[in-house]
Amino acid sequence: MVELIVPILTFQMFKVKHDIKMSDTNLSAVLHSKMDIRMEEWPIPEPKAGEVQIAVHSTGICGSDVSYYTKGFIGDFVVREPMVLGHESSGIVSKLGEGVTNLKVGDRVAMEPGIPCRRCDLCKGGKYNLCPDVIFYATPPVHGTLTRLTTLAADFCFKLPDHVSMEEGALLEPLSVAVYACTRAGVTIGKRVLVAGAGPIGLLAMMSAKAYGASEVVITDISQSRLDFAKKMGADHILLVDTKDAQEMAGRVKDSLGGRMPEITIECSGAESAIQMAIYATKSGGMVCLVGLGPPEVKVPIVNAACREVDIRGVFRYCNSYQNALEMISTGRINVKPLITHRFTLEQTLDAYNAAMGGSGIKIMINCTRQQA
Amino acid sequence: MVELIVPILTFQMFKVKHDIKMSDTNLSAVLHSKMDIRMEEWPIPEPKAGEVQIAVHSTGICGSDVSYYTKGFIGDFVVREPMVLGHESSGIVSKLGEGVTNLKVGDRVAMEPGIPCRRCDLCKGGKYNLCPDVIFYATPPVHGTLTRLTTLAADFCFKLPDHVSMEEGALLEPLSVAVYACTRAGVTIGKRVLVAGAGPIGLLAMMSAKAYGASEVVITDISQSRLDFAKKMGADHILLVDTKDAQEMAGRVKDSLGGRMPEITIECSGAESAIQMAIYATKSGGMVCLVGLGPPEVKVPIVNAACREVDIRGVFRYCNSYQNALEMISTGRINVKPLITHRFTLEQTLDAYNAAMGGSGIKIMINCTRQQA
Amino acid sequence: MVELIVPILTFQMFKVKHDIKMSDTNLSAVLHSKMDIRMEEWPIPEPKAGEVQIAVHSTGICGSDVSYYTKGFIGDFVVREPMVLGHESSGIVSKLGEGVTNLKVGDRVAMEPGIPCRRCDLCKGGKYNLCPDVIFYATPPVHGTLTRLTTLAADFCFKLPDHVSMEEGALLEPLSVAVYACTRAGVTIGKRVLVAGAGPIGLLAMMSAKAYGASEVVITDISQSRLDFAKKMGADHILLVDTKDAQEMAGRVKDSLGGRMPEITIECSGAESAIQMAIYATKSGGMVCLVGLGPPEVKVPIVNAACREVDIRGVFRYCNSYQNALEMISTGRINVKPLITHRFTLEQTLDAYNAAMGGSGIKIMINCTRQQA
Amino acid sequence: MVELIVPILTFQMFKVKHDIKMSDTNLSAVLHSKMDIRMEEWPIPEPKAGEVQIAVHSTGICGSDVSYYTKGFIGDFVVREPMVLGHESSGIVSKLGEGVTNLKVGDRVAMEPGIPCRRCDLCKGGKYNLCPDVIFYATPPVHGTLTRLTTLAADFCFKLPDHVSMEEGALLEPLSVAVYACTRAGVTIGKRVLVAGAGPIGLLAMMSAKAYGASEVVITDISQSRLDFAKKMGADHILLVDTKDAQEMAGRVKDSLGGRMPEITIECSGAESAIQMAIYATKSGGMVCLVGLGPPEVKVPIVNAACREVDIRGVFRYCNSYQNALEMISTGRINVKPLITHRFTLEQTLDAYNAAMGGSGIKIMINCTRQQA
Repeated sequence: MVELIVPILTFQMFKVKHDIKMSDTNLSAVLHSKMDIRMEEWPIPEPKAGEVQIAVHSTGICGSDVSYYTKGFIGDFVVREPMVLGHESSGIVSKLGEGVTNLKVGDRVAMEPGIPCRRCDLCKGGKYNLCPDVIFYATPPVHGTLTRLTTLAADFCFKLPDHVSMEEGALLEPLSVAVYACTRAGVTIGKRVLVAGAGPIGLLAMMSAKAYGASEVVITDISQSRLDFAKKMGADHILLVDTKDAQEMAGRVKDSLGGRMPEITIECSGAESAIQMAIYATKSGGMVCLVGLGPPEVKVPIVNAACREVDIRGVFRYCNSYQNALEMISTGRINVKPLITHRFTLEQTLDAYNAAMGGSGIKIMINCTRQQA
Repeated sequence: MVELIVPILTFQMFKVKHDIKMSDTNLSAVLHSKMDIRMEEWPIPEPKAGEVQIAVHSTGICGSDVSYYTKGFIGDFVVREPMVLGHESSGIVSKLGEGVTNLKVGDRVAMEPGIPCRRCDLCKGGKYNLCPDVIFYATPPVHGTLTRLTTLAADFCFKLPDHVSMEEGALLEPLSVAVYACTRAGVTIGKRVLVAGAGPIGLLAMMSAKAYGASEVVITDISQSRLDFAKKMGADHILLVDTKDAQEMAGRVKDSLGGRMPEITIECSGAESAIQMAIYATKSGGMVCLVGLGPPEVKVPIVNAACREVDIRGVFRYCNSYQNALEMISTGRINVKPLITHRFTLEQTLDAYNAAMGGSGIKIMINCTRQQA
Repeated sequence: MVELIVPILTFQMFKVKHDIKMSDTNLSAVLHSKMDIRMEEWPIPEPKAGEVQIAVHSTGICGSDVSYYTKGFIGDFVVREPMVLGHESSGIVSKLGEGVTNLKVGDRVAMEPGIPCRRCDLCKGGKYNLCPDVIFYATPPVHGTLTRLTTLAADFCFKLPDHVSMEEGALLEPLSVAVYACTRAGVTIGKRVLVAGAGPIGLLAMMSAKAYGASEVVITDISQSRLDFAKKMGADHILLVDTKDAQEMAGRVKDSLGGRMPEITIECSGAESAIQMAIYATKSGGMVCLVGLGPPEVKVPIVNAACREVDIRGVFRYCNSYQNALEMISTGRINVKPLITHRFTLEQTLDAYNAAMGGSGIKIMINCTRQQA
Repeated sequence: MVELIVPILTFQMFKVKHDIKMSDTNLSAVLHSKMDIRMEEWPIPEPKAGEVQIAVHSTGICGSDVSYYTKGFIGDFVVREPMVLGHESSGIVSKLGEGVTNLKVGDRVAMEPGIPCRRCDLCKGGKYNLCPDVIFYATPPVHGTLTRLTTLAADFCFKLPDHVSMEEGALLEPLSVAVYACTRAGVTIGKRVLVAGAGPIGLLAMMSAKAYGASEVVITDISQSRLDFAKKMGADHILLVDTKDAQEMAGRVKDSLGGRMPEITIECSGAESAIQMAIYATKSGGMVCLVGLGPPEVKVPIVNAACREVDIRGVFRYCNSYQNALEMISTGRINVKPLITHRFTLEQTLDAYNAAMGGSGIKIMINCTRQQA
């Protein structure tokens, strides 16, 4: 099967539905334990009330996926039983659960992969990403979306306009992290922004900060090639981190901005020295947003932060961000396509993960559709 | 001279003015260097345009004053030349500078002791406490208010109602820190609050949190006697810190609140383990407010804070807080008088500082008026 | 059956459960059309998954109930089919639906009577009161709680501490409106507040504003007896509205506050002249909160509001307010009991509504339990 | 004298200074009374401490200027004595007052024309636009900037980068209104925005909303030619207002957005029917920002606004907006140049005002420099 965003949409959608009906298998990439991914046929899931079944089209590889693959865990989350990987996905609605009216079979959708309880204080208060009972895909013991068919709550599906590709739909997941960070940090017209770390999330944060109106964005990294890529993607200034001296780096950030300190820093590396730089570099009364996760404890210049009222805000996944991320793409304010540097099929999952493990490229995308002979 | 808030106010005010006119000296407590306070006659300052001259009545001793006295510095601020100490003061307006219309001679006022530039972005943006050019009393090289006569910008004087005492007026300074912390932290009806540290600021933060509507306030300290005092002042729960295990202490905080985590923590100790406890103890989506200043760098469980979106906000002095602090006292929502445990005259300043250095009592107040024979 | 908050709680709870099991009827106050309330036996509702069945204890009469009774509608909501009245209720959990773990049979609970869809943008964004698909009790065509037995989503039940009475539990409903208004308006320490209208909601708004820390609260009404009652309940100043001249009244509000304008006005009357006064009276940069609903269109001094940036915010019911309202009562910050001036049994519903229609008293409470012989 | 932004800047700046020194006159456009503008030589103002003297370069004509000209007043402000017109200006610093260090002679600056008291609660709270003692240029009795030489507080001057023209500098004034409105309204990525009125402020609001990230902007007006111009300037949708039926227009707004209601409406017309449309059209939980000033009282569908929590916020001038407006221009996020449709010299002021009075074009710009022979 081929990409659906072509003129003969009707015909192809028919074919999709046909294929799905024929399907009596559900090929899935299952992590059994550290370094042990197996391609297995799993049961086809049926949508419950309020859910839809989705034929997954594209699934990106996230750093957490790689951590599960190489180490068997990330933070406190440990893979103890076989788990389907993947949570950055888009797909085509293939079946409707009871009561679903906002979608129809054939709809192309991006999939927000975390379903909260909808009943706790945090859910009702508009912070559902902090729900203690959230079901998040590919976080043990919940299965992920690196599979042919999965199910999802209908209100966590976001219909893609025709001119937004399925791969862009899958990229909405990491983009939502960046969008949420910009929202939490208050990026808007007139702000100067420092982004620490030029990996996929750092790049998306930099690009999002520009879309949110930032006057200038500086990005730092320890890799010059990543910085060169960031420059191509629109960074106003790039700065190579060649020292652990956080105050020295903070000074260079200020220099790069013509003597002005950024009001906002979005920290995407998780490195201790980067968090320190983030605090020293940010203007009094400003904001440091923590996106990257590194060691559980870091040494922080807390008096400097407190006395200058540089606030520190965490960012955990995202909340009410998918629609904004989608509109950022659909209105052309951001072009995320160049971030996809490698492509694999679902059958090639192992190759894809090995490539990711090796650190090649920016974003690796896996096509989960059944490839035509 | 005696306290002015007596029925025969007019007569006494005449005497004040008379005294002031007669005065050709200005006794001041001057710190020359570490452990070297000298009582000296200094020139009488004249109010410039927009300023008033004030006959200081009461000046409290702050931890920073003690630090200058015992160590000659606090943080980056070093006493290099003789400096008049003190900045927690109230007094009586004794002369008006050009253009002052909101005050008259004889007005009893609390004195907000930091005058910002009024022209930078931070001043114009409503965050004047972060003004890089602020003139803060008793912060080198600016002289303080432990003196008979000083001057102050008229708009930083707050008229005291008759039923608010001069000592309460002086206490508005530390109370403003607590008020500002409650504002920054968003304390209101329905919030549970943890206050770490039961020194003067911690006590005022606890009492302020109650006045701001907090459902319950837990306070921690390493001293049982401080905690017992806190209990008397209205703390719902007291917890002795007898371990450096921050997670253990966080668990006890939750237990004290019947299994609920506080949404807000106001950290007033500056201790590393208290900052760690503050993060672990605070509910997801909550707020840690840093008021206490300890070592410049501390080890912080940053992933725990970030993943649960426990935000960390510094509190530097206060901003637009004096009026609220005053109203909290004048409406009877808070009673700060019991915090004053020791009293001295200006002439006894050295005794007062030695008492403060020894850690006795909660708040030491110095009467700066000329004592009648 | 008698009130449950007595020492021999266990025994009585047993009796409650026993009674409920025995019950094969469900007496309900059903409004068939304007001025036509009938007491009927309705089927006993069974709790669905996530719901509980509740033996209603107390149900207050709200202005909207009276409007349905006397006019058959309120605003756009028209009673077209028989509808059970009532939505200000507390009760005792009598049966658990599937999956309910936060409650047990016998729990005394206050009932938040509006269940949103939990899936739309507004629900996910923390504004569930604006959900277009909310199911609100006693709003056509949804039945209310003036009945023996009803059902409710378990997460909209709020457990009452032993020392909070069932009547107070029922009063949480109108109190939540006041709490929500104070939250929306930003009432806190240091604010002066004008409340327009001294009916039940105005009184609760006045009392809540005090609990939220307001320095002074002025309340206005066209009835001196209501104002006298307001004064007893804690209003700092009362002002009789004896003119339609909104600017004149605004001037008197300022005078009553010693020449200061309130930063916040909570408008609870819905009257055109009161809304006009609210705008004129409020300090530049302040807030007018609209709670009362009057004529659909009113003439507003919009240039005055706009040029002084007096913001106008609506308040629709409440959102995440019940728990705060409950804690305001349980911590003794507010005493709502004196507002209950009349009491009736469920069987006496018609008398109760006729009393309400006649405007007697402040709040009329109906006991919905089966009275023992 | 010619425009300064040319390569041989140093030489020209010398000439500027030379000219200024030579100048012993100060041609000014003085409004004596309704329809009576006279070109007069006025004294050259000297900068006080903290001020600079500025050789005005460009001054735009604002609607308020035209109102003073044609009617002798606007709102409550009445021209009772001869007053220099104009307040949308840029110029070149020609002399420094005492203590000015952030500027030097020759600096090209935009001029924020309202100087607040810096001492009241509103100033200290970051809302200096609401300062009751603000000195606003060309608001009686304060003279304006349609003159050769004026003075201004140095911190209200904004240095223009070389690539920003003097005319763009003058346009920062109306642009700041639009910027401030977008800030107050919370325009950001993902929002849909309705702008009512396609005059200069409406156009700038529409363009600013796009720069702030709005997904789509609809603009309405009663003039098709204005709408056509708006379309050229970037409006996503234009809607001709051909009815006073506000609900009908609100429906068309929704239709134009594919069935979605805008979260934000920026009302720039002041018309009663437009304010009504703004409320009906805005999504529940959204915001109506009032920028346009029309009749002092208007009939507003207040129940609709209150029940859907459509908040109404005024916008009075701007506050901390100039720098953001400048950066929006300097980073190319907005191109305001096409708005200037007519140009005059200071000597031609009467022609300029008559053109403005006739409603020709969008923005009329007056060059205040001495024209070389």
